[in-house]
Amino acid sequence: MAKARVFNIVKRFSGYPVEQDFELVEQQLKPLQDGEVLGKTLYLSVDPYMRIYVRNLPLGSPMIGGAVARIVESKNPQFKVGDIVYGRIGWRTAFVSDGKDLTKATHLPADVPESLAIGTLGMPGRTAYFGLLDVCKPLNPGAVVLVNGAAGAVGNVVGQIAKIKGCVAIGYAGSDEKVEYLKSIGFDHAFNYKKVDIHESLSKAAPDGVDAFFDNVGGDFADTVILRHMKQFGRVAICGSISQYNLKPESEAEGGKGLFDAVTKGPRLQGAILGHQLKVEGFIVLRFADRNDEANSALAQWVKEGKLKWREHVTEGFENMPKAFIAMLKGANIGKAIVKNTE
Amino acid sequence: MAKARVFNIVKRFSGYPVEQDFELVEQQLKPLQDGEVLGKTLYLSVDPYMRIYVRNLPLGSPMIGGAVARIVESKNPQFKVGDIVYGRIGWRTAFVSDGKDLTKATHLPADVPESLAIGTLGMPGRTAYFGLLDVCKPLNPGAVVLVNGAAGAVGNVVGQIAKIKGCVAIGYAGSDEKVEYLKSIGFDHAFNYKKVDIHESLSKAAPDGVDAFFDNVGGDFADTVILRHMKQFGRVAICGSISQYNLKPESEAEGGKGLFDAVTKGPRLQGAILGHQLKVEGFIVLRFADRNDEANSALAQWVKEGKLKWREHVTEGFENMPKAFIAMLKGANIGKAIVKNTE
Repeated sequence: MAKARVFNIVKRFSGYPVEQDFELVEQQLKPLQDGEVLGKTLYLSVDPYMRIYVRNLPLGSPMIGGAVARIVESKNPQFKVGDIVYGRIGWRTAFVSDGKDLTKATHLPADVPESLAIGTLGMPGRTAYFGLLDVCKPLNPGAVVLVNGAAGAVGNVVGQIAKIKGCVAIGYAGSDEKVEYLKSIGFDHAFNYKKVDIHESLSKAAPDGVDAFFDNVGGDFADTVILRHMKQFGRVAICGSISQYNLKPESEAEGGKGLFDAVTKGPRLQGAILGHQLKVEGFIVLRFADRNDEANSALAQWVKEGKLKWREHVTEGFENMPKAFIAMLKGANIGKAIVKNTE
Repeated sequence: MAKARVFNIVKRFSGYPVEQDFELVEQQLKPLQDGEVLGKTLYLSVDPYMRIYVRNLPLGSPMIGGAVARIVESKNPQFKVGDIVYGRIGWRTAFVSDGKDLTKATHLPADVPESLAIGTLGMPGRTAYFGLLDVCKPLNPGAVVLVNGAAGAVGNVVGQIAKIKGCVAIGYAGSDEKVEYLKSIGFDHAFNYKKVDIHESLSKAAPDGVDAFFDNVGGDFADTVILRHMKQFGRVAICGSISQYNLKPESEAEGGKGLFDAVTKGPRLQGAILGHQLKVEGFIVLRFADRNDEANSALAQWVKEGKLKWREHVTEGFENMPKAFIAMLKGANIGKAIVKNTE
């Protein structure tokens, strides 16, 4: 019978996660029933959202996350041995599934690694696609698009789609190396937010203001942009608030009722939202799930045409999942942070 | 030749406006040229937006504002003597105009006062109409609609349109008398925000959360609602932030680039906007100007049918404009605050 290694979450995060918040266990997988498949995990995703979403997960549960896997045994007619699938598999090296949460990665071009199904051609790519083209619409050629966390899995795709659509792309990231990367993939302006004043640099890069602000970061950065740099009728897509995720233990969050409580104070933005008639919308990519095929096709086509570049930050070894997750939260990655199962 | 009395703005507001910020002057009006009309002002509007918009007005300028007037002389074929018009006339008892900024109040039902053209059947009514039906769309029957400043010129219409559309209407206002008024015009729940805890009262009135929040107030009230009480995919229409307008001199505002700078701090709302996938949109009614006829017709029809009640808070005498304006900002009015020119 097959075995799997699994990371369970065993402690609530307090500030940045630490390795001791996770426990690596070995599980015996049950024999397949009719309708089930056995999958071997090839690549696992570490993403910022995980920092937040585990709050509702009972301690002792397997850690959540997307992954790419190969079907190695199948009693489900929809999957055959050798199929490459992706889905919400969790932090596991192998798994038994009824297949309902697995999708065949048939949209991948022939010459790209299968890991792109959790990256530029996966959830992060679709997040960029829908967040920019739907939440920030209308996005006309010439529109000024601003994204922070720009060298991350989502941010780099946002800037590249902006360029594909004829927009001006402005990106902020946290190192000079990341800034060089952004310029190399076509961003018109790129800044190391640790070295520049946001207001000054943005005043020069976008003197007439920003049409669409794709916010992965929140905090002071977002406040400055929304207060001072949006054009009339500007759109703000709130995709993440990574500056806030690791500031305090959840127990100290103030007032919120959901997954994303307020943990810090800032200038009130309602006046600017009113005065400039902004639309500020939060979105989670799952709401567009019925349009996944559309996004997958478009993203894959752009990759084939060389218009959309991809880059991965690969950590080898399943046992390094917590390390890779923590490093990603601290900004170690350029492009998509993934873990390769080397078993 | 006709004379007019005019209020000029002669000092920048510091906190609440005071009467000394205005100067009453008498003007000699020039004889009519071809294409011009002479109007006598019948009713003048005092509105919260004036507190903000005068910031860009050079000192010594006539004070801005909407008004209803009667044409008393005309060299413009589009207007005849006796026509009732409304428009951005300013704080004046009489005026000469080329008519471009005047609209004939032909949408008023026969049995209502002409002053409704600056109230329930005017800019405030249209603000409620577009803010609720357009900015907060989709607004399905049964949706929970929350409005603050609910006894004001806009707020009372928001709640009544919500009821017309089959929604649940919840209103907050600043006195027990206002709460009684809200109940009398059909609000399902009404609270005196000075006497209740917002979170507790709203938890009872809307235990499953709010679909559409029409925000006239901003500040702590808005923070609490957005952080803790919105449903998934809820809509927030930011129409005003009256809690913030009189807190500080404009010179002390922080960071903003426009008319509505941030003057106070609050909990950061981006996490809640993301987590609940809210859409928070600021709007100024002028953006819907090309649909004014649609709103005027709908509002007038509802008044005719008795579905939309109107109430006015009338101050007599043009010389009392500043007093009426200041009292409105302090919440003295139930319904639309207007000044009647008794000359």
